[in-house]
Amino acid sequence: MNGNRFGRLFQVTTYGESHGEAMGVTVSGCPAGLELDEDDIQAELDRRKPGQSMITTSRGEPDAVKINSGTQDGYTTGTPIGMVIENKDAQSGKYEPYVTAPRPSHGDFTYSAKFGTRNWGGGGRSSARETVNWVAAGAIAKQINEAHGIEVKAHVNQIGDVKAGDVTWEDMLEHTEDNEIRCADPEAAEEMRDLADKYQQEGDSIGGSIYFEARGVPRGLGSPRFDSFPSRLGQAMFSVPACTHVEFGLGKEAREWTGSDRNEDWAFDDNGDPVPKGNKHGGLQGGITTGQPIWGEATWHAPTSIPKKQETVDWETGESKEIQVVGRHDPVLPPRGVPVVEAMLNLLIVDFMLLSGQINPDRLDGDVGEYDTDYHPRSPGNMD
Amino acid sequence: MNGNRFGRLFQVTTYGESHGEAMGVTVSGCPAGLELDEDDIQAELDRRKPGQSMITTSRGEPDAVKINSGTQDGYTTGTPIGMVIENKDAQSGKYEPYVTAPRPSHGDFTYSAKFGTRNWGGGGRSSARETVNWVAAGAIAKQINEAHGIEVKAHVNQIGDVKAGDVTWEDMLEHTEDNEIRCADPEAAEEMRDLADKYQQEGDSIGGSIYFEARGVPRGLGSPRFDSFPSRLGQAMFSVPACTHVEFGLGKEAREWTGSDRNEDWAFDDNGDPVPKGNKHGGLQGGITTGQPIWGEATWHAPTSIPKKQETVDWETGESKEIQVVGRHDPVLPPRGVPVVEAMLNLLIVDFMLLSGQINPDRLDGDVGEYDTDYHPRSPGNMD
Amino acid sequence: MNGNRFGRLFQVTTYGESHGEAMGVTVSGCPAGLELDEDDIQAELDRRKPGQSMITTSRGEPDAVKINSGTQDGYTTGTPIGMVIENKDAQSGKYEPYVTAPRPSHGDFTYSAKFGTRNWGGGGRSSARETVNWVAAGAIAKQINEAHGIEVKAHVNQIGDVKAGDVTWEDMLEHTEDNEIRCADPEAAEEMRDLADKYQQEGDSIGGSIYFEARGVPRGLGSPRFDSFPSRLGQAMFSVPACTHVEFGLGKEAREWTGSDRNEDWAFDDNGDPVPKGNKHGGLQGGITTGQPIWGEATWHAPTSIPKKQETVDWETGESKEIQVVGRHDPVLPPRGVPVVEAMLNLLIVDFMLLSGQINPDRLDGDVGEYDTDYHPRSPGNMD
Amino acid sequence: MNGNRFGRLFQVTTYGESHGEAMGVTVSGCPAGLELDEDDIQAELDRRKPGQSMITTSRGEPDAVKINSGTQDGYTTGTPIGMVIENKDAQSGKYEPYVTAPRPSHGDFTYSAKFGTRNWGGGGRSSARETVNWVAAGAIAKQINEAHGIEVKAHVNQIGDVKAGDVTWEDMLEHTEDNEIRCADPEAAEEMRDLADKYQQEGDSIGGSIYFEARGVPRGLGSPRFDSFPSRLGQAMFSVPACTHVEFGLGKEAREWTGSDRNEDWAFDDNGDPVPKGNKHGGLQGGITTGQPIWGEATWHAPTSIPKKQETVDWETGESKEIQVVGRHDPVLPPRGVPVVEAMLNLLIVDFMLLSGQINPDRLDGDVGEYDTDYHPRSPGNMD
Repeated sequence: MNGNRFGRLFQVTTYGESHGEAMGVTVSGCPAGLELDEDDIQAELDRRKPGQSMITTSRGEPDAVKINSGTQDGYTTGTPIGMVIENKDAQSGKYEPYVTAPRPSHGDFTYSAKFGTRNWGGGGRSSARETVNWVAAGAIAKQINEAHGIEVKAHVNQIGDVKAGDVTWEDMLEHTEDNEIRCADPEAAEEMRDLADKYQQEGDSIGGSIYFEARGVPRGLGSPRFDSFPSRLGQAMFSVPACTHVEFGLGKEAREWTGSDRNEDWAFDDNGDPVPKGNKHGGLQGGITTGQPIWGEATWHAPTSIPKKQETVDWETGESKEIQVVGRHDPVLPPRGVPVVEAMLNLLIVDFMLLSGQINPDRLDGDVGEYDTDYHPRSPGNMD
Repeated sequence: MNGNRFGRLFQVTTYGESHGEAMGVTVSGCPAGLELDEDDIQAELDRRKPGQSMITTSRGEPDAVKINSGTQDGYTTGTPIGMVIENKDAQSGKYEPYVTAPRPSHGDFTYSAKFGTRNWGGGGRSSARETVNWVAAGAIAKQINEAHGIEVKAHVNQIGDVKAGDVTWEDMLEHTEDNEIRCADPEAAEEMRDLADKYQQEGDSIGGSIYFEARGVPRGLGSPRFDSFPSRLGQAMFSVPACTHVEFGLGKEAREWTGSDRNEDWAFDDNGDPVPKGNKHGGLQGGITTGQPIWGEATWHAPTSIPKKQETVDWETGESKEIQVVGRHDPVLPPRGVPVVEAMLNLLIVDFMLLSGQINPDRLDGDVGEYDTDYHPRSPGNMD
Repeated sequence: MNGNRFGRLFQVTTYGESHGEAMGVTVSGCPAGLELDEDDIQAELDRRKPGQSMITTSRGEPDAVKINSGTQDGYTTGTPIGMVIENKDAQSGKYEPYVTAPRPSHGDFTYSAKFGTRNWGGGGRSSARETVNWVAAGAIAKQINEAHGIEVKAHVNQIGDVKAGDVTWEDMLEHTEDNEIRCADPEAAEEMRDLADKYQQEGDSIGGSIYFEARGVPRGLGSPRFDSFPSRLGQAMFSVPACTHVEFGLGKEAREWTGSDRNEDWAFDDNGDPVPKGNKHGGLQGGITTGQPIWGEATWHAPTSIPKKQETVDWETGESKEIQVVGRHDPVLPPRGVPVVEAMLNLLIVDFMLLSGQINPDRLDGDVGEYDTDYHPRSPGNMD
Repeated sequence: MNGNRFGRLFQVTTYGESHGEAMGVTVSGCPAGLELDEDDIQAELDRRKPGQSMITTSRGEPDAVKINSGTQDGYTTGTPIGMVIENKDAQSGKYEPYVTAPRPSHGDFTYSAKFGTRNWGGGGRSSARETVNWVAAGAIAKQINEAHGIEVKAHVNQIGDVKAGDVTWEDMLEHTEDNEIRCADPEAAEEMRDLADKYQQEGDSIGGSIYFEARGVPRGLGSPRFDSFPSRLGQAMFSVPACTHVEFGLGKEAREWTGSDRNEDWAFDDNGDPVPKGNKHGGLQGGITTGQPIWGEATWHAPTSIPKKQETVDWETGESKEIQVVGRHDPVLPPRGVPVVEAMLNLLIVDFMLLSGQINPDRLDGDVGEYDTDYHPRSPGNMD
């Protein structure tokens, strides 16, 4: 089984199970000349990691990243960047009851049926721990994107039946990281917090959703039809464990809009270029970016690991079995999913930037058609 | 720009613009030994084609497919299958006003900005005409799947604010093709028909959605995480022009469900294998198929080509311009989208069947590990 | 079975068997803005086609190419280019004796064993007729390369035991196409001609080789290690039917050279850039181009279709069988292989040009980092 | 720049530079159920590693491999296998003189020109140290192949002008590993040893070649034309640093053979299947395996790091410079290349085994079409 690779030019290849030795990710196709060290990656990993609050799992993982290759004197060299994040706090014992008795709504049985075996500690390869690799790779993509004026932000816009009010882009930038829920509407954030606490105490869990937006993305990105921007967006979001829904622009509601209401007339922008007057299409037309903000949302179902009593069957004994999935589990996923969603967006955007000639695939300082590209002076890390 | 290829082992590569000479698709990786001729493909193409009713575009395309390679004596040989469908009824003149003045909410400008030019007849490469290629390829996939007990069916479950009632799988099989809307609920179908007519007469259009289901899909298909079944499903649906939303299982609603309500306990099925008691997860757990029905839906926005007056700008003259997109256009997309959605589902399922060793990639009659595979007798098309 | 696709950004996907309806090729990833029509392709196809002389097969194929998509007003639009070349002069009857009795050293049996069947007319998918697709695609690549100062030329440097003398690059450009053998040394060409005639009259065939060179290729192309320039060169040449050997630079002889003799000291070129003093490495160091001429050669074994009596077995009857492969066959392959080798070189070079940011993948007139790329004026084909 | 990935279903993705922190490789697509631990990998790595004799580099690398994922209780689980091999004995200081003054015939300048920078310790990414990753991955492939009756062996058949005599397959299995040269002809091995010593003492180096053979490979592997067995073989060998030539069967000599001499008549084997009487085609016809031994050879040029005085230029100072590349370098490459060549062969063969349905891609114990595949009993590592 493959399925551990994302991207065409900016390629991310991963490995690692929840209770294995370590998680690992290789980024190939990152152009040379990006200032990069472990702190840059660590900052993003720290946003994601467990053990940050009452509301998230109390598994204590330092998530310390080690960069094994791909840089010289603090700059990327264009060669593959290998990173490793060790698993320090895996407690497999708790998972023994489930080896032959799958936990309800987990991937335990589908993996076992597919392979005839599985890594049964934690969720094995199906665990959301895999996303630590994506956030590490996304940290690199984020730096390149930001250097090109591209910003990506996501926030939790709903948990259970509690919805955030309307927020602006500035609200998202300013308030999302202020609270554990990562909701840009402070009042809704508190309600959501209370709701999650309530479910956690009841030994239950609840679903939620994440709204995302990307600004400053150049016009013209996307390779319709099968690698259009929406196609890649869909692939990316549905790759995140527990995602059940993805939409952009009017999304699911678009079914109820007429063409006359949805269509956007054209006008000229300040540069004298055509631009749609509105943006109900979420910054995407014909599968290609318009240069306007790209916006949408996705849904995560309730975490499946809940302490309530549930029933399973043990294929070894042939009998039913009552279980309680105790342990250290989140009652809700989106708060920790925000950095993951941002990472995936950054990854696909930077890949399209390379695919569209917005960035030279080999080197950040490279122009197209410059036959005699400069090569490095005394200090290899100095691109000047 | 690539983006014209779908699939890893069962690969579909396409070309063609709305008003170009012809559409073409190459299927590589189809195993040998499938009985196949142009009639098999034509049947599916006829379901899709324009000019079928008042409610769909009146462009008269016979959509006659020609198979150029990949078969011998009526059976596939395992070599690439090349197909061509000519464009017979393209009327480009109508599109002249839009060469430098993009139609609202079309891909006219994003394509022009991306490439510096575009095929301006019809929607060029962004046109839904491309889907004729997918239906042709999907016809092949469908035959292989059906030979393995897999069935795929879709129907229109909503247009505007008119929703179909609950329908069973049998309803879908029996009633979907009875009406132009392709809704399996006959009453709702009539309402939807009236609604579409109304919008058409008003010179407007309306959005809608398609519900899809696949049965008989073996357990164990999907390559988490980046090529999981949902990832591929998302890529596939968002590749279809005008799709704005995709979900499976509880989908967007899952955000409001608790874990205790959503989780499915395990039981034994008749074979003594674990099976979830319910199927709120849409037949997918951990990104892999459970063997249960796979179900979900997707949304298509209203067609953007409407005769109502709209405003655009002409980048050549630098001025605003009022336009009316006359011509032969659908007021609603999902009815014609049903065969396209089914085709994409069949394509991704057959690809996963090959990837999971359910089918020998080279030959339908081949087992795994059979070193001395039989080769053909006197008649090459006879696999016996 | 896949294997019909070549290239990562400039992608070529093919289909077609020797005696099928038609050959077809899809080029995706060709940037927009290239002036292109069928004559450009036809010129290259005419160089390759059968029926050109006594010494090549007398199968009469016009090899007329039809471009089905990907251009507008004589310029590429960046969308996939679909081309079809019909098979007009297939005479399958002659191949009936071999349906269950494979011809010596052909792919008849390996294909039959692999798939359980095969296209038995001519060589089916194993036929060198497939190369007509590569030459068609290569014609497009050639134009782009030449516009960037890159030239590719090959010539036949040996047939049997007759070797061409030393020739210069100018000799190759001037004399190769003057004779049927396509040898740039006119005297050797005559000897080779006589040798090939002799074998043909004896009902036999003979092997030969092609020397190739590429000039003007920028420094820095290649993606070591698995997609280095040599890796791709090896893949390309060994894809050509009947190729048994590939080398570049000192090639096979390098085993006998010392480091001190082979190593090239560095000097400064006119631009003040380091350049190796000599070029025994064939323009490639570390798997990447140096900017110097890239040179090497490859070998083609003798055509396997010879009228001499040979022995086979019929798996249907279970008996030995004497056969004579009559028909219209070349006594030697390299003369017709020269345009094929050039095409493959052009294809891989243009792909690396896109991969290295030497050319914007979407549009020939595009620079990197130009956010507001120009879009087309009144005439879509006019890139000015 | 990508180029760090090999394989379609059995995929190998690598990273690491000569003087970086560590080398790393991810194997995805390895079916579940293979007994695997670090000792299995270590055995192959120990064959390859430096510091083994006078004749090879004296860099002291333990090459200790750590498996980070992909196994459970000693068996593969079908999930990606991540491995890391740390670099312990890198001495970068010696390489300072070359930061802006490239060593003759190394990849120093091509890398610098391509990226504008490079990892200048050792050969950076161009170093043969990368091959430790391939040998680690190849160890896994080898186990699967051997479990299916496939054996791969290579030996050094020439160094300088010293050629091995004819050796049998048994000679190769028995004698190759007996001497440092890894030549299966003991007498020639001594001569080669003396020759290499001589050059080393002279501060020089010499080229050589490796003959390889694979037996027990099933008929029918290969995906012509672009992913045929020879195409992949060419890609694989030319990916190995310093390889300048590849051939199979009659190879370069085939140019001098007639068709009547080269062609092989058909006969029936013991199973009543057609088999060629001889094997001048190296076990490959039409790009597909015949089931016969696959044999060929490849050439490695002399190592470029030699202590003799050489001349370079320093692009920083603008001046010529005399250098002496001292350090710990091999005088000849093929002896250490033998495990690398075997690894690459094993990797491509196992990939084709998966692609051709010879092995179920998900699980070694899986058959095709077995819908209800068994899943694991109490001990996940026990496939019974």
